Amino acid sequence: MMKYWSEVAKRCTPYVPGEQLNDSTIIKLNTNENPYPPSPNVQSAIKKEMEQALHLYPSPTVDSLREAIAKQEGTTKESVFVGNGSDEVLAFAFMGLFSPYRTIRFPAITYSFYPVYANLFQIPYEKVPLMSDFTLDETAFFHSEGGAILPNPNAPTSIFTSLDLMENIVKHNPDNVVIIDEAYVDFAPETAVALTHKYEQLLIVKTFSKSRSLAGLRVGYAIGHPHLIEALTRIKDSFNSYTIDRLAIVGAKAAIEDTAYFKQTTRHILQTREWTREQLEERGFSVLPSATNFLFVHHPIYEAEKLYQQLKEKKVLIRYFRNQGITDYMRITIGTDEMMRKFLLVLDQVMEGE
Amino acid sequence: MMKYWSEVAKRCTPYVPGEQLNDSTIIKLNTNENPYPPSPNVQSAIKKEMEQALHLYPSPTVDSLREAIAKQEGTTKESVFVGNGSDEVLAFAFMGLFSPYRTIRFPAITYSFYPVYANLFQIPYEKVPLMSDFTLDETAFFHSEGGAILPNPNAPTSIFTSLDLMENIVKHNPDNVVIIDEAYVDFAPETAVALTHKYEQLLIVKTFSKSRSLAGLRVGYAIGHPHLIEALTRIKDSFNSYTIDRLAIVGAKAAIEDTAYFKQTTRHILQTREWTREQLEERGFSVLPSATNFLFVHHPIYEAEKLYQQLKEKKVLIRYFRNQGITDYMRITIGTDEMMRKFLLVLDQVMEGE
Repeated sequence: MMKYWSEVAKRCTPYVPGEQLNDSTIIKLNTNENPYPPSPNVQSAIKKEMEQALHLYPSPTVDSLREAIAKQEGTTKESVFVGNGSDEVLAFAFMGLFSPYRTIRFPAITYSFYPVYANLFQIPYEKVPLMSDFTLDETAFFHSEGGAILPNPNAPTSIFTSLDLMENIVKHNPDNVVIIDEAYVDFAPETAVALTHKYEQLLIVKTFSKSRSLAGLRVGYAIGHPHLIEALTRIKDSFNSYTIDRLAIVGAKAAIEDTAYFKQTTRHILQTREWTREQLEERGFSVLPSATNFLFVHHPIYEAEKLYQQLKEKKVLIRYFRNQGITDYMRITIGTDEMMRKFLLVLDQVMEGE
Repeated sequence: MMKYWSEVAKRCTPYVPGEQLNDSTIIKLNTNENPYPPSPNVQSAIKKEMEQALHLYPSPTVDSLREAIAKQEGTTKESVFVGNGSDEVLAFAFMGLFSPYRTIRFPAITYSFYPVYANLFQIPYEKVPLMSDFTLDETAFFHSEGGAILPNPNAPTSIFTSLDLMENIVKHNPDNVVIIDEAYVDFAPETAVALTHKYEQLLIVKTFSKSRSLAGLRVGYAIGHPHLIEALTRIKDSFNSYTIDRLAIVGAKAAIEDTAYFKQTTRHILQTREWTREQLEERGFSVLPSATNFLFVHHPIYEAEKLYQQLKEKKVLIRYFRNQGITDYMRITIGTDEMMRKFLLVLDQVMEGE
């Protein structure tokens, strides 16, 4: 029956997301969701919108949301592109800004969707090794043939690279697009958005799924020079005129406008993160310095895969990657204080062989 | 600045959707939306869901909605694919089931997104002329090199082709995929879904945007042999893991399960359609036999483009296509009785030169 599949359907190697189990008794620390609900304004905005016009198409240009994002990010609507989750934004960016004829670069240990996009659109790529402490070797990204994509902070390592080093990479790629995937930047020292005013080849990608507590609503965005945004828009309009539904538009707008709530929940997650880090270190784990809402950890004695399995049996779900170079590590999302206390309780049981 | 665009971004020719003006005083008859709100169950389902888990990712496999659709369509979950609007489903189908090395066919007058997808994915295509009365020459679709895509009913002509003729096309394309785009089928005599059990090369695409009154929520689906569905799923999972948000999942599920409401609103639209047709014919228009929620009409004396412009000036929005072969026609969406009365009133003013 593969006889009816296109070459693309045969060639592609789909991404496998973290498990989404439909069991509310599970302590879910595996896909870096925010443990707090979104701003209460999100619900009221959605409620109002759904009573009005669900039978009418949404705005294909999503102006109201783009304006709200631009205002928060200190840029213009024309510098903002909105997509159905940052994964869709990334897909359009690979398609619109990278070429099948020029090799791109990304870190050897990074978000595992990048090689999936590259295979889908037949874009050749090189995986650039990280340093032995998982930090970035920024010079290895200079003078790429076809551009580069790097998350900052990196995932799943959680490590942040300073903007000086990131700017150096952009500067040394004057003729190619550099994409910085800032999915986790709100838990890190600073965003590179200001650099988009200086470098017309820089595209920043962000998401509402993490710091804005809207993983369930599917909204992501890109910020860059209007000409880069135009390329994304051309691809989007050749693919699907209306990618963001009415409820997502008003929900995301309400979320990004509620700065006070955002600061409060983010601060709380950072506090919980530092407390969890200390707790894990007390138990002998080494924890990479995290600038995200998760910790990337390993233990000198306990095997990561085994811990992951044993935690799962006791209904605590964390993420384990069977990828080269990180098989000794596990990734733990930061939940509420209560979730982390329960996680540590179960972890103690597992480590004591109970 | 196009220097940073990929070949695809340069090559593609984006689709231009009907105008979405943000003016509630306009009588909007230009994008074939349903004039009635969705089933009241949609709002309660969305309200319940948003109070629970907007901060958590939705199901990447959308099982609950696929099961609900399968039940209504008399098939299995494995035969159903769900996308972010039927446009996304069509994009994945072009990518996963048509090939850059084999020419596909579609009608010369049809949904104008088809050539856009073909250009985006570099799939060669032939436009098959319609008969002079806009009906389908089904034999011209036999033995295609790379497959075919046909809306039934066709848009913007509104004409339905009998299932016997459609089956003939499928039968004469044993080695290639035939896609029937049934966006408007709920306003027509019958769906071809039953044929998917007989022909493994047949894919049916449907939408929640028309008969289910959910254009604002962005949900579409495909029905076909599980192996075709698998190709679409492979593309989707190489593109975006979570294309349907939590609110769209529960909203669409509530809509498709409320059969009584669906039958009632659809019946009403058909009544309004026939009344509007009579009214237009009384004014000298010829109206193609419609099996959709719109009418495709022309007048022997009044120019279509001029009427479209004059109606627009008076805040009545219909659709005019500057495409070869249909420049004398205009497309009018069926609204409520009141909307159509107002439309006719304004039309009379325009025709009388007021």
